[in-house]
Amino acid sequence: MPEHGRAGSAVTMRDVAKAAGVSVATVSHVVNDKPGARIGTDARRRVQEAVVALGYRPNALAKTLSQGTSRFIGLVSDAIATTPFAGQIIHGAQDEAWRHGYVLLVADTGGNPAAEDDAIAMMLEHQVHGVLYSSWYHHEITVPQALKETDTVLVDCYAPASGLATVVPDEEQGGRLATEELIAAGHRRIAFINTTTPSPAQTGRLAGYRTALEAADLPFDPALVFLAAPEQEGGYAATGEIIEAQATAVFCHNDRVAMGLYDGLRERELRIPDDIAVMGFDNQDVIAAHLRPPLSTVALPHYELGAAAVRILLGSETHDAARPYLVACPPVLRQSV
Amino acid sequence: MPEHGRAGSAVTMRDVAKAAGVSVATVSHVVNDKPGARIGTDARRRVQEAVVALGYRPNALAKTLSQGTSRFIGLVSDAIATTPFAGQIIHGAQDEAWRHGYVLLVADTGGNPAAEDDAIAMMLEHQVHGVLYSSWYHHEITVPQALKETDTVLVDCYAPASGLATVVPDEEQGGRLATEELIAAGHRRIAFINTTTPSPAQTGRLAGYRTALEAADLPFDPALVFLAAPEQEGGYAATGEIIEAQATAVFCHNDRVAMGLYDGLRERELRIPDDIAVMGFDNQDVIAAHLRPPLSTVALPHYELGAAAVRILLGSETHDAARPYLVACPPVLRQSV
Repeated sequence: MPEHGRAGSAVTMRDVAKAAGVSVATVSHVVNDKPGARIGTDARRRVQEAVVALGYRPNALAKTLSQGTSRFIGLVSDAIATTPFAGQIIHGAQDEAWRHGYVLLVADTGGNPAAEDDAIAMMLEHQVHGVLYSSWYHHEITVPQALKETDTVLVDCYAPASGLATVVPDEEQGGRLATEELIAAGHRRIAFINTTTPSPAQTGRLAGYRTALEAADLPFDPALVFLAAPEQEGGYAATGEIIEAQATAVFCHNDRVAMGLYDGLRERELRIPDDIAVMGFDNQDVIAAHLRPPLSTVALPHYELGAAAVRILLGSETHDAARPYLVACPPVLRQSV
Repeated sequence: MPEHGRAGSAVTMRDVAKAAGVSVATVSHVVNDKPGARIGTDARRRVQEAVVALGYRPNALAKTLSQGTSRFIGLVSDAIATTPFAGQIIHGAQDEAWRHGYVLLVADTGGNPAAEDDAIAMMLEHQVHGVLYSSWYHHEITVPQALKETDTVLVDCYAPASGLATVVPDEEQGGRLATEELIAAGHRRIAFINTTTPSPAQTGRLAGYRTALEAADLPFDPALVFLAAPEQEGGYAATGEIIEAQATAVFCHNDRVAMGLYDGLRERELRIPDDIAVMGFDNQDVIAAHLRPPLSTVALPHYELGAAAVRILLGSETHDAARPYLVACPPVLRQSV
């Protein structure tokens, strides 16, 4: 249980400030005995009384030094804070960390190994409780050497031989769900535009597509599976083949592919969903809800990936590290199916 | 000058590890005298020798306690880590902080005042050197009370009466640049789809549009300025009026508006840029480069906003706080003009 910080039952500097009727900065000056701060005798006394009455532990850093461990959790990522995609991992990790009285130290390395080494060294110097190592997309990584000697949870990435706890999206369940939506709308000839990039998303979403077809007694037809670069240009370029294959619905590897396919279908004066239904994947912000028509898709559960990783790091949720912890991808239904 | 940390000339734990031929974690165990860590006598000796030889300061936290100030800079934001837009502010601030031997503590509050108070209290408890207070878009804010008592720089937001240093994009220069590109391509009847949201972007980009017209001896025609919601739906809805106004070029308030306008023009079988040229604003990732045709636009300088704010906070760059520090918006030319 948290002994200090922002958790439900723990006393914060804010609580002390409220009880004493002063600002948080005043409390900080008093409890840290800051030289040079001009605090009135009365305010100082009220703060000291509130500290005692509430049982506030005044100095996070002094506590860290005496115990050899801190209330910090490190988050090292290649680009989740800076690409317009997986930032909700930070949000989920931060909310969950605060709930347990921990503070998140975020370092975004841009995938640069030297910056990564520096970030991890910084976190070790600040005696973090552990580190979340995260990527902006689900793929295999090499675990930096320094991380092998501290508690680490991998988030939206994996390293099979590492033995580290791993939290990733359930790509197969997501692919199955997307395909099931199209089947439920009456489609029988469903194309799948998969990515050309080898990845768990490539194999998992394909497996989910096949599982859904099988469960509905629909044959798997390899001629309905296309490979495309996982962006607008790939979806646009695949349009001709999709139409030749006489598909009435398309499951797209991601929303960017769907956006390109929209352009291709429009050029051929085909209407969505009347002439052809389109399902995306990712629920990508700024795109999915704003296409014409708004895109039905499956969301990547970024927030929950971050939150679950913190729970596993802190041991408030247990999971066998031999298997990845899979987070389900929920449906987001709009008007393209 | 930095005495400890990741700056060019400062000695890091990584340097010690390299010199001693051990892992960073081993160095951490030795210099922090961690109980329970099993370190061989020889490794311990090599680390201690390297610490002395390189002049490494072993404990950031102990140093903080003795000096009453830390190597942390706080970054409190409403949503820059979690919206797909302004994350590069973090990247710029972090790179610049590291360059000066500081570490960035990032807290994304989702705009929730209680979370914001908690984040600021946490930062004060950790004795941050100062705080960057940032928003995901340029607008007026109310400075939280606690921040008034620590060094603070406002980033991509402002509070006129606060007297705080403020770093914001140069909206007027950006609007002028966008309009100049259209004039340079030979256009004389240039529409402007501005946002319905009152903001510095609304007034600044309009002022820039007018300045560019004036400099080219083109009359300002209020009938060519339209207001629309600053997203795809707004741009799409404005298409009819743009065509009725017989504009040959359109400067859009942002790239999302341009994306909606693209859809509207396509429905009317108008080609970009042959029938009508389109200029965006923001250079929004995932969108601008991937429209058909790729969108010419003006970039919001998010990275530089974060970097400049750190320089001002640390005093390595001086600027009169009475005026905002304006960062120029550079052009990104593609194929829509």
